Amino acid sequence: MARAIELYFDFISPYAYLAWTQIHRLADEHGAVVAPRPILFAALLDANKTKGPAEIPAKRVWVFKDTFRRAAYAGVPFAPPPAHPFNPLLALRVASVAQTEAQRRLAIDTLFHAVWGGGPGVTDEATVRELLTTAGLDGDALVEAAQSPEVKASVRARTEEALSRGVFGVPTMVIDDELFWGLDSFDHLERFLEGRDVLRSDELSRWRDLPASSQRKAVKSP
Amino acid sequence: MARAIELYFDFISPYAYLAWTQIHRLADEHGAVVAPRPILFAALLDANKTKGPAEIPAKRVWVFKDTFRRAAYAGVPFAPPPAHPFNPLLALRVASVAQTEAQRRLAIDTLFHAVWGGGPGVTDEATVRELLTTAGLDGDALVEAAQSPEVKASVRARTEEALSRGVFGVPTMVIDDELFWGLDSFDHLERFLEGRDVLRSDELSRWRDLPASSQRKAVKSP
Repeated sequence: MARAIELYFDFISPYAYLAWTQIHRLADEHGAVVAPRPILFAALLDANKTKGPAEIPAKRVWVFKDTFRRAAYAGVPFAPPPAHPFNPLLALRVASVAQTEAQRRLAIDTLFHAVWGGGPGVTDEATVRELLTTAGLDGDALVEAAQSPEVKASVRARTEEALSRGVFGVPTMVIDDELFWGLDSFDHLERFLEGRDVLRSDELSRWRDLPASSQRKAVKSP
Repeated sequence: MARAIELYFDFISPYAYLAWTQIHRLADEHGAVVAPRPILFAALLDANKTKGPAEIPAKRVWVFKDTFRRAAYAGVPFAPPPAHPFNPLLALRVASVAQTEAQRRLAIDTLFHAVWGGGPGVTDEATVRELLTTAGLDGDALVEAAQSPEVKASVRARTEEALSRGVFGVPTMVIDDELFWGLDSFDHLERFLEGRDVLRSDELSRWRDLPASSQRKAVKSP
């Protein structure tokens, strides 16, 4: 059985989009498969009581510049959605509906492209139905199934699972319980898949046990 | 006159250390010079009411793994300091004392190595004096000058300047008023230096003007 690269992602993140456009080739090259894990990024921020990149004005500008450049270098279509941040729940739920893995990949492709590839976004239900149908899927059935209590619960459960595994951002790739965060960890992931990772567990435990000699005060409410 | 790459950094950051070990070669290759800008990273977090990577437990583990791997691939010595987080102010001030640029570079080299290269850290004054003296600098004079009101004020002023320019993290490299955040932006920086940046200002303004259609509630106090 092929090794699975679990990909935790949210449509809100342009880095998750770029990762999605690259991860299948990387998996193919290493005889692995991609297991998509749609989660709500905002819930990770809530759990960690911190801000996302788009919530710090200067960082928001950087993220755009960085992802625009990376998309250009990778030759991937890239344009901001009609609004951002936006509510990604409908799209996350569509991606979580029970379907074949080929259908799921096509649905995720379609939804990501609608957000970051110059499309109309994924917040309007009628638009999402139409996009999926145009892609060759059953848009009406997918959107209906997406609104079932089971599917809504599955996005919540996946998000909780992510938090319990130590996922703090998207995209995060997990293989053999080892986490790789971010588009710029693809090099690390590739070395790991090839058995060439350099990380030593004794070094890691040294860091885990490191004392703090100074701390900032807790973050205050704005 | 050579183009200057301004490098905003804090000794607290292992990414800033790795950037420091790479930036001079990159500058040399492009006929540029490095202008070090020591700033207090914690003050950026305070201003943005957010958390640093070391303040989110799962992210702290990731940062160690990521920087350990990057250091290994780059062939750079890397080991955590005796404690982390720690108070970097003495080191930031030593790096800010009026001195020749060659002396400043040697002082920063010495201090960074003491933190991330397996050394004794930079929080103890006697240790810092000794490290600087062993490196061939006048450790006593540097530590004394570091404690002058003018030098203390200059670290604060640099940090304020950084915030006003849109710096939100370290390392940040600035050239021709264009900001490049993080070790993984070296590729972007290199293309920019070579006149091969792909970013178009019309795309940037499209993003800046993007509306939000959904927002998280404000981050609450822990």
